Amino acid sequence: MTTATDEMTAKGQAARTASREMARLSGDVKNRALRNIAEALEGAGDDILSANERDMQAGREAGQGDATLDRLLLNPARLTGMAADVRSVAALPDPVGESFDVRTLANGLQVGRRRVPLGVIGAVYESRPNITVDISALCFKSGNAVILRGGSEAIHSNTALANLVRDAIADAGAPRDAVQFISSTDRSLVQRLLSMKEYIDLMIPRGGADFVRFVGENAQMPVITGGVGVCHTYVDRDADLDRSVAIAYNAKVDRPTVCNALDTLLVHSEAAPRCLPAIAQEWARAGVEMRCDMRALSILGPSESLNVKPATEEDWGTEFLALTASVKVVDSLEEALEHIERYGSGHSEAIVTEDYSRAMQFLDYVDAAAVFVNASTRFTDGGQFGLGAEVAISTNKMHARGPMGLRELTSYKWTVLGNGHVRS
Amino acid sequence: MTTATDEMTAKGQAARTASREMARLSGDVKNRALRNIAEALEGAGDDILSANERDMQAGREAGQGDATLDRLLLNPARLTGMAADVRSVAALPDPVGESFDVRTLANGLQVGRRRVPLGVIGAVYESRPNITVDISALCFKSGNAVILRGGSEAIHSNTALANLVRDAIADAGAPRDAVQFISSTDRSLVQRLLSMKEYIDLMIPRGGADFVRFVGENAQMPVITGGVGVCHTYVDRDADLDRSVAIAYNAKVDRPTVCNALDTLLVHSEAAPRCLPAIAQEWARAGVEMRCDMRALSILGPSESLNVKPATEEDWGTEFLALTASVKVVDSLEEALEHIERYGSGHSEAIVTEDYSRAMQFLDYVDAAAVFVNASTRFTDGGQFGLGAEVAISTNKMHARGPMGLRELTSYKWTVLGNGHVRS
Repeated sequence: MTTATDEMTAKGQAARTASREMARLSGDVKNRALRNIAEALEGAGDDILSANERDMQAGREAGQGDATLDRLLLNPARLTGMAADVRSVAALPDPVGESFDVRTLANGLQVGRRRVPLGVIGAVYESRPNITVDISALCFKSGNAVILRGGSEAIHSNTALANLVRDAIADAGAPRDAVQFISSTDRSLVQRLLSMKEYIDLMIPRGGADFVRFVGENAQMPVITGGVGVCHTYVDRDADLDRSVAIAYNAKVDRPTVCNALDTLLVHSEAAPRCLPAIAQEWARAGVEMRCDMRALSILGPSESLNVKPATEEDWGTEFLALTASVKVVDSLEEALEHIERYGSGHSEAIVTEDYSRAMQFLDYVDAAAVFVNASTRFTDGGQFGLGAEVAISTNKMHARGPMGLRELTSYKWTVLGNGHVRS
Repeated sequence: MTTATDEMTAKGQAARTASREMARLSGDVKNRALRNIAEALEGAGDDILSANERDMQAGREAGQGDATLDRLLLNPARLTGMAADVRSVAALPDPVGESFDVRTLANGLQVGRRRVPLGVIGAVYESRPNITVDISALCFKSGNAVILRGGSEAIHSNTALANLVRDAIADAGAPRDAVQFISSTDRSLVQRLLSMKEYIDLMIPRGGADFVRFVGENAQMPVITGGVGVCHTYVDRDADLDRSVAIAYNAKVDRPTVCNALDTLLVHSEAAPRCLPAIAQEWARAGVEMRCDMRALSILGPSESLNVKPATEEDWGTEFLALTASVKVVDSLEEALEHIERYGSGHSEAIVTEDYSRAMQFLDYVDAAAVFVNASTRFTDGGQFGLGAEVAISTNKMHARGPMGLRELTSYKWTVLGNGHVRS
């Protein structure tokens, strides 16, 4: 245990030292390093696949289900996909060094802000080994060092991938120590990692809601809490029928296991008789289970083709991550807004309406990372929003909100150019 | 104690509720409220001054020194000065509602970020009662509610000023509860305030270094730590003599009690024989005590006109807040950079040089909120940097760095306008 703690301190120090060099690394060297990573992934030999097979074997022996084993699996096609993602990151503009808010003051002093890396990013995550490469690439491109702590179930795959990344960046002349991987799987070490505020400037947890909450409550450095979305779509009195159906269907069915999927459908009482049966029918074809309040139940009536149940209090404010949705009929936009304020997680919220003023009111009132008019909440995503890639989706209000791309992994410093200026 | 805790919870809830209304308040109403505050300050009668006299009387009885009593004092001229500051805040552009990074995606979806208030700001501060008005005005203009906790030594003045502010904003039709003042002076309540993360989104401590550190280590919500500046000015080998003297003099003497004042002068060994005696002479006229390393001592020699002492290890990395400076001779830019990295607090650092490449190198390498070439560190200030006003100077890297104006008291939400868009 002491050895493991010492290892973590040593890695923290190494990352801090590397971060200073990283802050000054040219965009050319960074992009060469990223292309090296991509090539190494494409040409990866048996070492990566056999390391992965050890994790797969352990998972099978532990009786893991097919979904878990599938998340763990690496094969040549997946490595090629990871390589393509790294090349995409290389192709993004370098955020470091960008100047903004530059102005020359009346006294001739030239004042501006210049973007700089945050320093050292910590990442604690579960299962999928591609996160090791994804987060390394995003932190590296934004000039940060990173300390990675993956789940024990993928320890051999993650170790092999981290070594591949470290070798690839060193080959490009970048500091190998900019990417640190904690090789011990001792769970108590997470607590130690969360206390290392002298070495880690920002902690990014990736995993389930309980895990993210645990990190948020225990980390001594700033944490990006996010990835938990209790998302509502409100079908307003003046909603277009076809749009209602298309948006509700897409938000719930397109990819139900992710944080920007619909959890609760709110329907205005005047729109419900018109829209709700049509939405329910489409959802039923996709196998969606509906947990309905009494008014929604009575509108839908007894039907063998629908999978409908009465909702309980727990169904409001629940992130289902499955083909399940709660459904409530409301009498006004205000009631919908109150429901969203009470039960939403501040992630993504949508209104479907043809009424201009009510659309604007929804945009103004809803306090969430992303607010949509006549569009599916599924669009909350760094790639979709034009950030190129994302390291997380923040539901914090401080620093960055919503999808976090490269720029959101930076800070800035004020630069001031004078010619002997003094203040009087 | 229970009553005081209940009071704090009630004020937290009231601030949270008011913050929702604040987020949607028009710029016109906010500016009218700010003008009301200014008028009330200008027309303030005996209630404010007699409340202040009670604090002054208590201060005199407690044997406070002249400097402390002067910080505490209110008089008509100071109230007029506070009113002018509030009018300046009213005149600043409203940051709330500003849209940025707006783009239309290839699929026609209109995506952008819109600035919104953070929510509820907590402010814990010591002595000067004008902070009650300053911070209220800045939080109010940026659409936030605020919970104020001033020092016990100014409790009567602060209470009277907070009431004046609350009445003035209510008269303008803004929520009175947007400004909350903790009236109990029980010191243990600070701990409770720092735990109220459900009601307070950001905590801003204003006071000495130990106080700011205490808040940073104990607050459960994000904290702006700042206001502590161990600032270096490095006189390079190729420094201009006159500029060196003017900048070192201004940085140390203009206002020695503030965080952007010079603490340590570093001088290149080739520039020291030329520049150091001249700087020392000017400093001596202003009464500056110099704590010098051995090489600086030997260059300055024994002199009755200078106030020179040998430096001890403690003099590096100390914020003097007085007419005292430590002085060290270095052999290279690199040695200066290492010294700054080791002892600086990441606030404001300056180089004086005529060499272009070394100026650029200093800008690149120094990791601080503000980095200066050929200018005094005294310029680190929201007003000087064109932000109009500042609520604090952050030495954090997350969220905001350096002077924090109105924009730095905001977050944003993503707004997405579609016409039935679904993700495929």
